[in-house]
Amino acid sequence: MAKPRVGVVGYGVIGQRLADGVAQQQDMELVGVVDVAPTLSTRALLESGMPYKLFVALPEQRAAFDEAGIPVSGTLSELLDRVDIVLDSTPGGVGRVNKVTYQQRGVKAIFQGGEKNDIVDVFFHGYANYEKGLGKDYLKLTSCNTTGLIRAVDCLDRAVGVERVIVTIIRRVADPGDTHRGLVDVAQVDPVPSHQALDLMTIMPHVEATGLLVHVPTTHGHIVHVIATLKRSMTKEQGLELFEAHPRIRVVKIADGFNSNAALFRYARDLGRKRADMYEIAVFDETIATSGREFMFAINIPQEAVVTPETMDGIRASLELQSDRLEAVGMTNKYLGLGRHGTAG
Amino acid sequence: MAKPRVGVVGYGVIGQRLADGVAQQQDMELVGVVDVAPTLSTRALLESGMPYKLFVALPEQRAAFDEAGIPVSGTLSELLDRVDIVLDSTPGGVGRVNKVTYQQRGVKAIFQGGEKNDIVDVFFHGYANYEKGLGKDYLKLTSCNTTGLIRAVDCLDRAVGVERVIVTIIRRVADPGDTHRGLVDVAQVDPVPSHQALDLMTIMPHVEATGLLVHVPTTHGHIVHVIATLKRSMTKEQGLELFEAHPRIRVVKIADGFNSNAALFRYARDLGRKRADMYEIAVFDETIATSGREFMFAINIPQEAVVTPETMDGIRASLELQSDRLEAVGMTNKYLGLGRHGTAG
Amino acid sequence: MAKPRVGVVGYGVIGQRLADGVAQQQDMELVGVVDVAPTLSTRALLESGMPYKLFVALPEQRAAFDEAGIPVSGTLSELLDRVDIVLDSTPGGVGRVNKVTYQQRGVKAIFQGGEKNDIVDVFFHGYANYEKGLGKDYLKLTSCNTTGLIRAVDCLDRAVGVERVIVTIIRRVADPGDTHRGLVDVAQVDPVPSHQALDLMTIMPHVEATGLLVHVPTTHGHIVHVIATLKRSMTKEQGLELFEAHPRIRVVKIADGFNSNAALFRYARDLGRKRADMYEIAVFDETIATSGREFMFAINIPQEAVVTPETMDGIRASLELQSDRLEAVGMTNKYLGLGRHGTAG
Amino acid sequence: MAKPRVGVVGYGVIGQRLADGVAQQQDMELVGVVDVAPTLSTRALLESGMPYKLFVALPEQRAAFDEAGIPVSGTLSELLDRVDIVLDSTPGGVGRVNKVTYQQRGVKAIFQGGEKNDIVDVFFHGYANYEKGLGKDYLKLTSCNTTGLIRAVDCLDRAVGVERVIVTIIRRVADPGDTHRGLVDVAQVDPVPSHQALDLMTIMPHVEATGLLVHVPTTHGHIVHVIATLKRSMTKEQGLELFEAHPRIRVVKIADGFNSNAALFRYARDLGRKRADMYEIAVFDETIATSGREFMFAINIPQEAVVTPETMDGIRASLELQSDRLEAVGMTNKYLGLGRHGTAG
Repeated sequence: MAKPRVGVVGYGVIGQRLADGVAQQQDMELVGVVDVAPTLSTRALLESGMPYKLFVALPEQRAAFDEAGIPVSGTLSELLDRVDIVLDSTPGGVGRVNKVTYQQRGVKAIFQGGEKNDIVDVFFHGYANYEKGLGKDYLKLTSCNTTGLIRAVDCLDRAVGVERVIVTIIRRVADPGDTHRGLVDVAQVDPVPSHQALDLMTIMPHVEATGLLVHVPTTHGHIVHVIATLKRSMTKEQGLELFEAHPRIRVVKIADGFNSNAALFRYARDLGRKRADMYEIAVFDETIATSGREFMFAINIPQEAVVTPETMDGIRASLELQSDRLEAVGMTNKYLGLGRHGTAG
Repeated sequence: MAKPRVGVVGYGVIGQRLADGVAQQQDMELVGVVDVAPTLSTRALLESGMPYKLFVALPEQRAAFDEAGIPVSGTLSELLDRVDIVLDSTPGGVGRVNKVTYQQRGVKAIFQGGEKNDIVDVFFHGYANYEKGLGKDYLKLTSCNTTGLIRAVDCLDRAVGVERVIVTIIRRVADPGDTHRGLVDVAQVDPVPSHQALDLMTIMPHVEATGLLVHVPTTHGHIVHVIATLKRSMTKEQGLELFEAHPRIRVVKIADGFNSNAALFRYARDLGRKRADMYEIAVFDETIATSGREFMFAINIPQEAVVTPETMDGIRASLELQSDRLEAVGMTNKYLGLGRHGTAG
Repeated sequence: MAKPRVGVVGYGVIGQRLADGVAQQQDMELVGVVDVAPTLSTRALLESGMPYKLFVALPEQRAAFDEAGIPVSGTLSELLDRVDIVLDSTPGGVGRVNKVTYQQRGVKAIFQGGEKNDIVDVFFHGYANYEKGLGKDYLKLTSCNTTGLIRAVDCLDRAVGVERVIVTIIRRVADPGDTHRGLVDVAQVDPVPSHQALDLMTIMPHVEATGLLVHVPTTHGHIVHVIATLKRSMTKEQGLELFEAHPRIRVVKIADGFNSNAALFRYARDLGRKRADMYEIAVFDETIATSGREFMFAINIPQEAVVTPETMDGIRASLELQSDRLEAVGMTNKYLGLGRHGTAG
Repeated sequence: MAKPRVGVVGYGVIGQRLADGVAQQQDMELVGVVDVAPTLSTRALLESGMPYKLFVALPEQRAAFDEAGIPVSGTLSELLDRVDIVLDSTPGGVGRVNKVTYQQRGVKAIFQGGEKNDIVDVFFHGYANYEKGLGKDYLKLTSCNTTGLIRAVDCLDRAVGVERVIVTIIRRVADPGDTHRGLVDVAQVDPVPSHQALDLMTIMPHVEATGLLVHVPTTHGHIVHVIATLKRSMTKEQGLELFEAHPRIRVVKIADGFNSNAALFRYARDLGRKRADMYEIAVFDETIATSGREFMFAINIPQEAVVTPETMDGIRASLELQSDRLEAVGMTNKYLGLGRHGTAG
């Protein structure tokens, strides 16, 4: 069987990383990426020697790329001729419009958290509900925050059962390089419950969830304090063992220097990861505590790259590359190099 | 009876505000404030016409004030001759040294949260354990964060009983104007449990407490998410009623624009409060939620001024100005203008 | 003669401070302020006992204020019946629309820097071109940054002549409490020349000006490095003397603790200024340097309140309260308490 | 001839990058790096499979690395047996102590900007004074800010002559991941002249220099506004041509999205550069302006990696690998891949 052919529509913060993710999946082929105008991201493609083929959404957008000297391989329409599935990472709301085109062309699609749930067949998380995505044409991934949160909660839930989750989300308000959004010297409070708690309940309907979200002026990752009420109590050591066995979770020690979202970002840089990206969420060892059936811990969610693994899982589900959940996430993990971070992480 | 005479030792962020607090207590006399070198705070005293008398810690510190043109009324030793009690707001650790002097001179003292508990007779909070401070020579106030937190927890505890408290503290990492500490683009995680949880248990030993503290780059107030397990469940409305009746708690609405620590700071400025100070903690209405016996809410703690009321209470306890807790805090509240903030807050 | 009656349209960051400014001018009467919906600013009016009368722009906006319990004294139309001049501090672009109404009603108006120059008769700065505003119906103030910059440059220009000015503007990107704009961990560069340089040349056409503007994540004041080419060289001491004699300029020393925009903000708080506002720009003494005919220095511009004095001057010019420039600015200074900050500032 | 053997002492932000730099110089051999305790940087070495050999400063430091599972190849003393030269990037002041050891062992050394000039033979900049370093045993590099600044000024000076330089340095106050220093909501002003101006005059004694430094809360690069008085005037186009021809200078356009220090950091990530490092300074095209003989422009200086190329030059000078300046910097550039960034940069 030929490798499934994948396109990425929207080459921004998320789209770049999805393209990187697909390029690493040796059982898939990245046909190209689509954007609408020259950006830093597409200029970086040029300077890097065009590792990915670039397509324009509309023919008339070609001129601007020509002027910037960035080679264009065709239009979105031409890309759609050559792919089995697209990863749509356009700005929120555009995916709804694009879906009409995808449907007309008979191309499957996976959307990101900025779209509404009603445009897809399944609201998807690779670890938590892989089976629901099998063979479906249109999936939507959970948002970065929810993706990371569900990883941890699903990990506990499958082991001991989770009844309730209360979260405090300390949300990074902008990505590195953003100049169009931000806060200065403000911690901004949202009404309860945060959408992440609601989304968790959609994906894991047997869990009650609520939580608070506070926006803070940082760019290097969300910090989430999770208070999970387990079906039966568990020691810190038992929890640690579960987290350490999860290929998409790192357990890190504050005492070792992993004391912040920025420390994890710095560590990813020092590892030489492309774009300094981190796919794993991190559990801070010294934040794990228990009280009765409550199991508490803080995690770091690297918002830029965290959805990449679960999006790869989505391709596997939609195209039915693997019918088994663990087999599917295992393939994704293998190609992304997840699960081998031993002593240092 | 003559008004009790009070001195403030250490005229920094906290000391300035304690002096302001004493100056407003019509049943006390502020004899003066002590500092060791000209600072912005003492220069502001000069430009304001010396509303408070200034004393130096040691005679040799006088020259620097003379050069700056700031009138000095005497030395710490001379101040101690004239006061019944001092509020020590020197940097952490200095209070321990100063205490020896205070003892030798037979002067009572109230220390701030930066000192160790072992130097005092009672670890004090005006609302939670006023009676313990009665007649004691040496009290230590809870820190800003703990002071605000205990206000809210004690309020619930006296009404319905609190069994357990889990907090997530989003800590402002510097005060406005600080150039000697700070974080840039970092949310820094501390090991669990935070000292605030431990301190709460010291003051309220019948409550189990734990919590996480995350430092964030803001200056305008701590945000604390409190998850309190009550002895019996309570509705949001019942909780609101309790908070609204508390003179040192404001209930504010995100929908009204009170959406952040900085919004509350701005509001204090617009109220024309001196130094834009806010004595009250604020509960964000839309963050109140319940789940079983869990009662959850987020508060804003204005770190600069929040300890002023409880420190005034401490004077009342140590000097036995009022033997009754509610009478004492009521006097403090009356003079600080607390409890009259109606419709807008 | 009856006191001139003044209204303030738009009660935001600037409008609040203009109202405060008018209220301090003992030879003027503040008739009221206008806003369109309940905000923190108008809620603070309520909690403060309505020191200023509040009017709504349109009758239908009354209901929202009624619901918030904030008393409304009438509509903009009714306000216009009672005033000689309005200070329009509505968001940029709204002033153009409002002007039509003001013209129909025969009411003079002063607009702020967010409006285009073409809607007014004169682009105005109290110190630099007072005479041009005399008797004119519609004035526009320079922006906060330009107002502060021109104060300093005009001060030098009148004494020794300025040929050229090159500025580097380190612009605070948000005001305290803003949640709708900001930058996180970014210093953003604008194309040269900045509008402030162009505006300076409009007001002072005999000076050549250019400059760079960099946005930085702070809220407490712009820092501007000014390199002025004088007609004849001047020593640092001579420059200091000029600045110290200017009622709207403070000379401060880094060595005294005035080491940042935030230190000046803190100092204003400690002075007990309303809203912690500072009308004066500050020259940092230790940043003054000379090289040939170049005279260099750095200033702090407190963006929230700095335009208040020059706006008061504008009222004086438009209504011809004083025909002489120095007499006019002197009256403004007297009522704002400017020029008396001696040793400490 | 055997390849020169190089050691790196101090494996922090700078040391990591110097090791990366040496590893890329195909005519040099990186023998190993030295540190004193496990850090994120050395843990990242472990997780990366120990691409560089690690040595401890003192034998007793070995235990901590053993406990962390990080293999140690020997001690500093053993490293010194095997190297011709060390790059000392220890914290400021430690280099002075280390130098005694280096001298005893007959090993040459290059120190970074944190050391005092008096411990070395030459204060060095690869482009500006390569010849002075030839054969010298102890060199000290200019600091990150000064290194970047001199690159640009030297480039102009060699072409048309520079008489005077006035700079405004907007200094990033911390590196990404720092938790031990920072500012929150503060722009802090230093006395004039900044050390960078003085250092520039030390390296380029025929140029008069002065300047202001303002610390701002960002981590992604210094922004410097340079006002150079040329010996003869030059158009913007002529200046652009000079900058574009310089292998260590990028000319970028704000209009293309390169609008900030953070945009350049993001671009380096997107290029896939290791650690997201950028060796080149960037000149913002739209900030170039002229006025008489004044030539003005703003540059971005990526503080973490900018000194790497000039440090490699220092090795070449000290070991006399190349006697010709242009030949030496050319070799460094070739191995670092500098000078090939065409259309996109």
